[in-house]
Amino acid sequence: MPDYAEPITRLIQQLKRLPSVGQKSAERMAFHILNNWSKEETGVLAEALLDMKEKIGYCSVCNNITDVDPCQYCSDPTRNPKLVCVVQQPHNIVAVERTRQYDGAYHVLMGALSPLSGVGPDQLKIKGLLERMKAGVIEEIILATNPNVEGEATAVYLSKLLKPLGVRVSRIAMGIPVGGDLDYGSFTSRACRQDVSAASQAV
Amino acid sequence: MPDYAEPITRLIQQLKRLPSVGQKSAERMAFHILNNWSKEETGVLAEALLDMKEKIGYCSVCNNITDVDPCQYCSDPTRNPKLVCVVQQPHNIVAVERTRQYDGAYHVLMGALSPLSGVGPDQLKIKGLLERMKAGVIEEIILATNPNVEGEATAVYLSKLLKPLGVRVSRIAMGIPVGGDLDYGSFTSRACRQDVSAASQAV
Repeated sequence: MPDYAEPITRLIQQLKRLPSVGQKSAERMAFHILNNWSKEETGVLAEALLDMKEKIGYCSVCNNITDVDPCQYCSDPTRNPKLVCVVQQPHNIVAVERTRQYDGAYHVLMGALSPLSGVGPDQLKIKGLLERMKAGVIEEIILATNPNVEGEATAVYLSKLLKPLGVRVSRIAMGIPVGGDLDYGSFTSRACRQDVSAASQAV
Repeated sequence: MPDYAEPITRLIQQLKRLPSVGQKSAERMAFHILNNWSKEETGVLAEALLDMKEKIGYCSVCNNITDVDPCQYCSDPTRNPKLVCVVQQPHNIVAVERTRQYDGAYHVLMGALSPLSGVGPDQLKIKGLLERMKAGVIEEIILATNPNVEGEATAVYLSKLLKPLGVRVSRIAMGIPVGGDLDYGSFTSRACRQDVSAASQAV
């Protein structure tokens, strides 16, 4: 005999497929929806789910996720097309945008080099970036891949690939977060352990 | 300019309405669905949501949530109708069922007495329980309300209400969990601090 009525059990099973949602959380969610949401409110969530899968695609220029092609950043005439920020995933664009310090274009690699997981240069959207450079508009490429082993490896690979093509290639600064407190900074990253001469050179 | 494309923003907003889901978790869920689920898989979740709201109702006998009326426990001829276990919420039934020690009927109160939240006896489904008792089948009522202030108050109230009607009224045992280790038991509950004579009496 199943624990809950079949439609609830099925919903709990489905909710458990979401990241960080286990049996208890899924049960709590299902009962929350059952007890507190109206049929219309539940319909809005169901529609939002289907709508997203239906409408969201990838930008043909930068691979950003978008409901229009080209995406809002690629089609915005106020943005600087000479500058391209390379990120691993579409949601990384939002992190860069939130700084409100960047007004250039983007390019999403859809991953990072990770030989152990079978991700080599051919699995990344590097070809599209090289295509974009052929137009001769791009002057600088900022490598904003993640500050971890895979991101670093990808940045080094791209740097070696792109520099000979005559563009300026830069990497986002890494170190303790600006505006924080030295006590709470992490001193494990390579960037934090660079010597003073290198640091002043970077400045 | 919105951070994400509109359909994603809308889905994130909707997911944030679930319990214990904040902005970051909702973003992670939305991107997980976008990147890893097929249209069909997303459809299954959306359908499960709508299906549950559509099909699940309350049992006309015991107020359990169910897709058939009367519910699976009320309509099961192998269960003992002389015994009724009173719980606060429908999902409490599952907790009792998991013990595999109980084969009687249930009655869901849909809450517990809580004067501060404006929940009095009239807000609970007590009337239905009294109606059920009129048939004269019920011989014992087990009060399995939660072991907290509201649950205790409800148990005391029901006990005083039901005992004069000639049924045996009992409360689930409270104390340190059986099968556990004394070191990890909680000694804050009233039941754990009862004196030895009372404890042996209870045995």
